[in-house]
Amino acid sequence: MTAKKDYVRPLDFKTGRVDMNHGAGGRASAQLIRELFASAFDNEFLRQGDDGAALPAPPPGHRLVMATDGHVISPLFFPGGDIGCLSVHGTLNDVAMMGAQPLYLSASFILEEGFPLADLKRIVQSMAAAAAEAGVPIVTGDTKVVEQGHGDGVFISTTGLGALPPGRQMGGARGRPGDVVLVSGTMGEHGVAVLSLRESLEFETAITSDTAALHTLVADLLAAVPEGAVRTLRDPTRGGLATTLNEIAAQSGAGMLLQEAAIPMLPQVEAACELLGLDPLYIANEGKLIAIVAPEAADAALAALRAHPLGRQAARIGVLTDDPHHFVQMATRFGGQRVVDWLSGEPLPRIC
Amino acid sequence: MTAKKDYVRPLDFKTGRVDMNHGAGGRASAQLIRELFASAFDNEFLRQGDDGAALPAPPPGHRLVMATDGHVISPLFFPGGDIGCLSVHGTLNDVAMMGAQPLYLSASFILEEGFPLADLKRIVQSMAAAAAEAGVPIVTGDTKVVEQGHGDGVFISTTGLGALPPGRQMGGARGRPGDVVLVSGTMGEHGVAVLSLRESLEFETAITSDTAALHTLVADLLAAVPEGAVRTLRDPTRGGLATTLNEIAAQSGAGMLLQEAAIPMLPQVEAACELLGLDPLYIANEGKLIAIVAPEAADAALAALRAHPLGRQAARIGVLTDDPHHFVQMATRFGGQRVVDWLSGEPLPRIC
Repeated sequence: MTAKKDYVRPLDFKTGRVDMNHGAGGRASAQLIRELFASAFDNEFLRQGDDGAALPAPPPGHRLVMATDGHVISPLFFPGGDIGCLSVHGTLNDVAMMGAQPLYLSASFILEEGFPLADLKRIVQSMAAAAAEAGVPIVTGDTKVVEQGHGDGVFISTTGLGALPPGRQMGGARGRPGDVVLVSGTMGEHGVAVLSLRESLEFETAITSDTAALHTLVADLLAAVPEGAVRTLRDPTRGGLATTLNEIAAQSGAGMLLQEAAIPMLPQVEAACELLGLDPLYIANEGKLIAIVAPEAADAALAALRAHPLGRQAARIGVLTDDPHHFVQMATRFGGQRVVDWLSGEPLPRIC
Repeated sequence: MTAKKDYVRPLDFKTGRVDMNHGAGGRASAQLIRELFASAFDNEFLRQGDDGAALPAPPPGHRLVMATDGHVISPLFFPGGDIGCLSVHGTLNDVAMMGAQPLYLSASFILEEGFPLADLKRIVQSMAAAAAEAGVPIVTGDTKVVEQGHGDGVFISTTGLGALPPGRQMGGARGRPGDVVLVSGTMGEHGVAVLSLRESLEFETAITSDTAALHTLVADLLAAVPEGAVRTLRDPTRGGLATTLNEIAAQSGAGMLLQEAAIPMLPQVEAACELLGLDPLYIANEGKLIAIVAPEAADAALAALRAHPLGRQAARIGVLTDDPHHFVQMATRFGGQRVVDWLSGEPLPRIC
């Protein structure tokens, strides 16, 4: 007599497709978990094979940081990345923006019936590679399947846990007038890479997503300045630089004055935005951060960012001002000044 | 001059619908978060308003437990509950089944364009009520919107964090021959409630979902027996009792022998399953647990379960056996014996 598992044929990752059985909780679900997820993400915690993962707590005195992010990007594959690595980077970055060291990730997949297993494998492998590169294991997960026409290929919600060192206080409310606004690099590549693919535009110079895990950049930045000098970190994803700065302004109760000429941007992104009729300040980034920094620490902070491979184009783009209406204003290249408002008009959907 | 937020009209929770702007990261997203999620889930952590939540760590010596679960149930509202409370109970229970005390939840929403805001509000309020009743705050979240026809109303992925006391070792692999199999109550109500609604069946006696948070039941159970006597806890959700017992058997390397007559079940569930052509052992539960318990602790464990409002119908349904093929066998009511295999044949999709 043979053990039951011997009766199961291996999944067909060449021509197979997701079917409803893969989400029903029975043998097909177990097979998908075993042959795809557990195999790609393999680590001691996932190997426990229970409904959740038992994990070492953060070091004594540390608090926890928890962040979650749903990923619904369309198309699933784009120049420079895919929904898999994006779902790792996006959530790791949210944890890192709190000033915490990311420790663990969980992943919840919502798959659409009929989705090619080959594409799913590619996405899962991209997630696994991104998690391995970042040094943060995917310790637990869940998979559901919805009928064809009730999903869109793959949605991935990830949750990240991190350790926040004693005494660290960062958040959107901590900026004050006089603080300096830094960005870690050029703005707009992720959104333009996705949108130009969607619009079937081809540019002479290909634009690729900047998707990247920023926690080592954050660690270098925080190590270079006194504790408390970095008031706020935020990654300008949905809604781009403009929206994120407006959020920070609202939270801190300050205004801002930006220098348009100081905002780093690739010429091909500017050109693409012009062609697409988009304002690059509202375009999503997935591998850049905004730092609000005490004025006396700004030079050291900028130097630390520029010394890291992901921060070479870092720049000082403005200051926080005393403004009861907490407007984000911008001195334009042509010597004028305008309000950079929240995103309005047409949204840019399914960008992350 | 008036502050910018004064220009925004409140959301129309009577006739309004989710639109793409609600997921674009701009002012409409901020409004949805403020007027719906932040208002319903309100707690000190969510109020931080950052990309993640900074949280107190578990008590010294405790490990963490992390569990995640995607919820895609159709229909969204069913007798006894809805996707909102289900998404809280499901993940809390996964944390509790690890022997941990649930501390925090995160929630990732994937909304379909056009979904009525009234229904969304009802779901969010149900989540908030479930979280409040369980004493576990929803500390961070995310919302995305997909175009009509690319989602199915609302998907909710929740992640739970819990504190695992020092020395607690529980998991599917710890059962051994001779251990006793307990269930905390009647089987099959959740799945039958959802399926009968879907099939537009009406039964004389309405069947309602058993969806409930089980962490206080688990706490009472664990307090009643020596540490280590409860080998495994598992909630028989997708795939039902039969599938979950097969998982435990496979993990522990033991077989099982169940007594069919001992498995508690409402007569109306049996009748409905007969009508629907379903085996109740494969039907999802959302408020029941399976406990694999050392034989010498079984009586105390059963008494502890029965003393709790959610465990009144608890029963001893079988034992673990020495079986290299780790089959789950069942002595039937009619004196025979059969193998209770993994779910095969038609799946029961979108049940949780």
